Amino acid sequence: MNTPKLLPSLMCVDFSRMAQTLEVFEQCGIDALHVDIMDGEFVPNYALGTDFCRQLRKLTPIPLDIHLMISRPDTKLSCFAIQPGEYVSVHWESTPHIHRTIGAIAALGGKPMLAINPATPYDVIRYLLPDLAGVLVMTVDPGFAGQQLVPAMLQKLRDLRAFLDENGYPDLEIEVDGNVSFENAEKMRQAGATMFVGGSSSVFWKGASLSENIQRMYAVIGKRNIAVLRAVK
Amino acid sequence: MNTPKLLPSLMCVDFSRMAQTLEVFEQCGIDALHVDIMDGEFVPNYALGTDFCRQLRKLTPIPLDIHLMISRPDTKLSCFAIQPGEYVSVHWESTPHIHRTIGAIAALGGKPMLAINPATPYDVIRYLLPDLAGVLVMTVDPGFAGQQLVPAMLQKLRDLRAFLDENGYPDLEIEVDGNVSFENAEKMRQAGATMFVGGSSSVFWKGASLSENIQRMYAVIGKRNIAVLRAVK
Amino acid sequence: MNTPKLLPSLMCVDFSRMAQTLEVFEQCGIDALHVDIMDGEFVPNYALGTDFCRQLRKLTPIPLDIHLMISRPDTKLSCFAIQPGEYVSVHWESTPHIHRTIGAIAALGGKPMLAINPATPYDVIRYLLPDLAGVLVMTVDPGFAGQQLVPAMLQKLRDLRAFLDENGYPDLEIEVDGNVSFENAEKMRQAGATMFVGGSSSVFWKGASLSENIQRMYAVIGKRNIAVLRAVK
Amino acid sequence: MNTPKLLPSLMCVDFSRMAQTLEVFEQCGIDALHVDIMDGEFVPNYALGTDFCRQLRKLTPIPLDIHLMISRPDTKLSCFAIQPGEYVSVHWESTPHIHRTIGAIAALGGKPMLAINPATPYDVIRYLLPDLAGVLVMTVDPGFAGQQLVPAMLQKLRDLRAFLDENGYPDLEIEVDGNVSFENAEKMRQAGATMFVGGSSSVFWKGASLSENIQRMYAVIGKRNIAVLRAVK
Amino acid sequence: MNTPKLLPSLMCVDFSRMAQTLEVFEQCGIDALHVDIMDGEFVPNYALGTDFCRQLRKLTPIPLDIHLMISRPDTKLSCFAIQPGEYVSVHWESTPHIHRTIGAIAALGGKPMLAINPATPYDVIRYLLPDLAGVLVMTVDPGFAGQQLVPAMLQKLRDLRAFLDENGYPDLEIEVDGNVSFENAEKMRQAGATMFVGGSSSVFWKGASLSENIQRMYAVIGKRNIAVLRAVK
Amino acid sequence: MNTPKLLPSLMCVDFSRMAQTLEVFEQCGIDALHVDIMDGEFVPNYALGTDFCRQLRKLTPIPLDIHLMISRPDTKLSCFAIQPGEYVSVHWESTPHIHRTIGAIAALGGKPMLAINPATPYDVIRYLLPDLAGVLVMTVDPGFAGQQLVPAMLQKLRDLRAFLDENGYPDLEIEVDGNVSFENAEKMRQAGATMFVGGSSSVFWKGASLSENIQRMYAVIGKRNIAVLRAVK
Repeated sequence: MNTPKLLPSLMCVDFSRMAQTLEVFEQCGIDALHVDIMDGEFVPNYALGTDFCRQLRKLTPIPLDIHLMISRPDTKLSCFAIQPGEYVSVHWESTPHIHRTIGAIAALGGKPMLAINPATPYDVIRYLLPDLAGVLVMTVDPGFAGQQLVPAMLQKLRDLRAFLDENGYPDLEIEVDGNVSFENAEKMRQAGATMFVGGSSSVFWKGASLSENIQRMYAVIGKRNIAVLRAVK
Repeated sequence: MNTPKLLPSLMCVDFSRMAQTLEVFEQCGIDALHVDIMDGEFVPNYALGTDFCRQLRKLTPIPLDIHLMISRPDTKLSCFAIQPGEYVSVHWESTPHIHRTIGAIAALGGKPMLAINPATPYDVIRYLLPDLAGVLVMTVDPGFAGQQLVPAMLQKLRDLRAFLDENGYPDLEIEVDGNVSFENAEKMRQAGATMFVGGSSSVFWKGASLSENIQRMYAVIGKRNIAVLRAVK
Repeated sequence: MNTPKLLPSLMCVDFSRMAQTLEVFEQCGIDALHVDIMDGEFVPNYALGTDFCRQLRKLTPIPLDIHLMISRPDTKLSCFAIQPGEYVSVHWESTPHIHRTIGAIAALGGKPMLAINPATPYDVIRYLLPDLAGVLVMTVDPGFAGQQLVPAMLQKLRDLRAFLDENGYPDLEIEVDGNVSFENAEKMRQAGATMFVGGSSSVFWKGASLSENIQRMYAVIGKRNIAVLRAVK
Repeated sequence: MNTPKLLPSLMCVDFSRMAQTLEVFEQCGIDALHVDIMDGEFVPNYALGTDFCRQLRKLTPIPLDIHLMISRPDTKLSCFAIQPGEYVSVHWESTPHIHRTIGAIAALGGKPMLAINPATPYDVIRYLLPDLAGVLVMTVDPGFAGQQLVPAMLQKLRDLRAFLDENGYPDLEIEVDGNVSFENAEKMRQAGATMFVGGSSSVFWKGASLSENIQRMYAVIGKRNIAVLRAVK
Repeated sequence: MNTPKLLPSLMCVDFSRMAQTLEVFEQCGIDALHVDIMDGEFVPNYALGTDFCRQLRKLTPIPLDIHLMISRPDTKLSCFAIQPGEYVSVHWESTPHIHRTIGAIAALGGKPMLAINPATPYDVIRYLLPDLAGVLVMTVDPGFAGQQLVPAMLQKLRDLRAFLDENGYPDLEIEVDGNVSFENAEKMRQAGATMFVGGSSSVFWKGASLSENIQRMYAVIGKRNIAVLRAVK
Repeated sequence: MNTPKLLPSLMCVDFSRMAQTLEVFEQCGIDALHVDIMDGEFVPNYALGTDFCRQLRKLTPIPLDIHLMISRPDTKLSCFAIQPGEYVSVHWESTPHIHRTIGAIAALGGKPMLAINPATPYDVIRYLLPDLAGVLVMTVDPGFAGQQLVPAMLQKLRDLRAFLDENGYPDLEIEVDGNVSFENAEKMRQAGATMFVGGSSSVFWKGASLSENIQRMYAVIGKRNIAVLRAVK
């Protein structure tokens, strides 16, 4: 199983403090930056864009984790100028050509993730297993921050983890996105999650500083305190 | 005819210097902030989102100028939490119910603008005249920064200005968006434009500072130097 | 110019008194029954259906006036089992193949009407003139009963009537739909309307009986009191 | 397992005898009124509308059972003014956001039902189980009355009933819609159905009176004759 | 005004005699080969494809005249591997971004043509004039061979020709497509057409040989008999 | 299990040698002609059309095997004039009404095949089993010739064959389409395939003649050399 990873959701960032925030992320050894792309059609909201991705790549060496909540991503991938090493999640529900889309991400050097909505069964991944870096299990309905965890998703995580083990893919990542609070992250980790998208109820929690939140999440998800290691360097 | 207005395009902003940029905008008396919303479907790109708008409203008193490059805005307006006094542009080409959409913007206290693509004739506005705050004439095809001015648009501006005068609506704004450089802004002003969206070839031009660019644009479009006036206060 | 016609909107009918209502309509010599078909996509509502049309045709000899507020009617006409003598309105904004759709209605013996939304210019009918029975000018945005008249529509009616006269088609019907109240009907008639869709503010007005409302509308639109004539027979 | 329920399909009602029909339904203790909403896009037909629902709610205390055969119901729910206690069915095949849609129905006090087309496997409900009032198994392809039962659906009913029992949800309703004749209803009941949509081959069968048909269906589905009980009161 | 051009419609070709047919076309000096691309969505039919275009380009030096009867051609142009010198027609009704699409064709070296359906007014071309090689006036509704000429289209041709002359673009081509029979071609030429798509009622008329039909059409449209000239060489 | 069948893909045919090619196919006893219909929307390409099908039916008695790579085939079947005995494949991913579509093909005398994309699980066929002639397993993503076999598809073929046997449908065809080379065909046959679509890597391989390629494929898939038998006759 993979080492745990923390991915702050930039939808929750304070745009007026972007530079300072990225600096903290780098100091803390954040694994990747979760960028939500929404089209108002696949999901009823609009979030971040391609220029934002372009700037992020210049501002920080932390790789992106691009979450495409858009319809027909198979025809729109070129918009995003995917870079080698970036995670890119596409939704099972968003295209009839998910295999082609995943292959196209890999061909660009990206790490393809299959995102599945709360009602989508996990076993749709069966014939995609050799092609995936992981599965993004939506733990709320996609589109908005601030929702409550769908309780049945913890069972889905356990079912998926068992399925991956049985089918010989124990190293596939399981990413969770949606109400990944300090409390829920703990349960998600136990259920098999390895990548945690942190938003307003964890990384950006108002009750403590950014770096305190990150350290607390590291403890919860079992990630070694890279910040300290770096500090020593 | 209205006083000229300058509207920096936030698609071109440096996100790591947002706070400083907004401060300059306020000091210079910027009229409104142009926010591009793209859905990857009406236009082949993705830009800014609803959370970005929400934050902007908190960070600055400058009103927004929201440009909806999305399909079927008539069904999606509620996403944007339009505030009284904000400009909101919707495209003629994006909905069969443009009159309803414009009315819905006005009902929220917004100032409705009709956006028209380069090939769209200006006289589609005929039966919308009493309901509009102005017309947004796309001077390039919507979707990307950095394109060249479509030359025929200068004639369209002149035709539209004449049409407004003839029909008794001389006070409707004419907004221009797309390659509004220092050079082109001059021609656009002469052709009848009153609102200027400034991007990488003017407000955000790399050859001078933000405030120098703004002052230069003010001179071009004939806007009094409000920055000085404020300084005097 | 055609004789004026009154068309009650069945969207406003009391379904529990359908039989009695149809009897009054027959006695009063109602010209046609306006049936709104909505698809939730072209307009944000759902109204009457194909089974309802089928029953109406059996219950009464009054012909139907079917208003298709649906997307791509060119591909869906066969649903409606159009009968000879029925009016069928299709929206300019709903299909790229309006000429084909109009021809298909005529081929079935229907009387094709072009419906245009409030913002749509009237002169889109230019190359359709030889093929049309008339034009349905939406005097509110389509989709709901109970809206207020869009004031600019009176001018559009006058413009359209002049256009028809100039181009040699004085006998084309002009139908009005949307807030055709007793007061507005009078203005619409003066502006050139010949077919009046009566809803909650006229035919189904709560302040008087159905037949009183109809007689009052007949007086307003200048239609001879057929009810009396029939009564004499 | 729930008590059996009979739901007349109002698509088959005689509109000229609506009041009398509703009276019979009330006297017989009908459980809910099945209202088909079609959009011509998800299904190739148009049926009943929102005004019809509004009137029904005033005409009778029998709750509605609204069957949304429409595309993207997640974005259109507000049209229907769902009332507490009403059943609302949405199709698995009609939206990528079925979990959100079901949650939205419940939030309004409705009883959410998942409708599945003949080819759709029953186990798509796995992660929706805690959120559903039941499953609507289409026993014909949706869109038209008068079709023949798809034989494989009886096996699907048995499979689904077993699945519900095994997973600890024996009280979820199984509703059947499509050719629920006297003969087929018997087989459907044995296979696990608990809610029966009665149309032209049962409740509205021409060979007997409405109340006789209802009593006969009650016998078939094992529902106690509430009409008699009421009569005693 | 341009020299007249004849363009056989390959939708009407006998596929089992393709090689021989192309040989005749070359000998007769045919100007371009009309290739209909249909998507079953913009038009209710399917015609020729990209592999067919690819083969044609190898089989003959005659340039293609590609008629895109497809929805949203702005997002699909790359499919067609447009070659310098080819005509490419895109429909006004098929995209909100017709200016961008025309520019993209020109950037590839193609000759952009604007296609307009029978009901579409000719003056939509106003702000596209500097960018077009010509206008394709559909003289029937697009999608099928064998239809009758829409009579009003002759007037549209005359109106368009006058418009081009008045606006300083006398050299723009006017292409006609749909029932371009020997008889109709004569009228179309007089009305201003310069490019003639010949199908089953002219080039592929069963009553004479291919080359006889072509010569007869040359006489009708006023094109010099290049076949003879070549023969002399 | 069925006798093996070879189906040349006409997307790969040399159009200038169509007549000769069909003659070879007839002499070799080819089972059916695979015709790809693409709409640019369901798949990002355009291939063959309805006129091509019409001509093929006249040119040869070999039945067609029509592969509909189009969106919403349920609404478009009538375009294809399906003939008794023709195979017609529709994609699981292309319509919410796959059962209806399959029934409509059968009602015309066609042999309905369910096509499934690489990521689609095979068990979606469960409730369609009684209605299918077979399953078309896409062994590459649909849309283009010349792609590499998706390795996981061999396992899917084995899984599907086992599923058919277990469920009592051993005679359903399993068709493979995509990189069915001489080498891959052998593996596909062993995994359970019975119908082989031959394209540029087998039937139309440039290294040998058409009939040599066909004989070689016959040997690989285990089909008796009908060509010889015919020759003897």
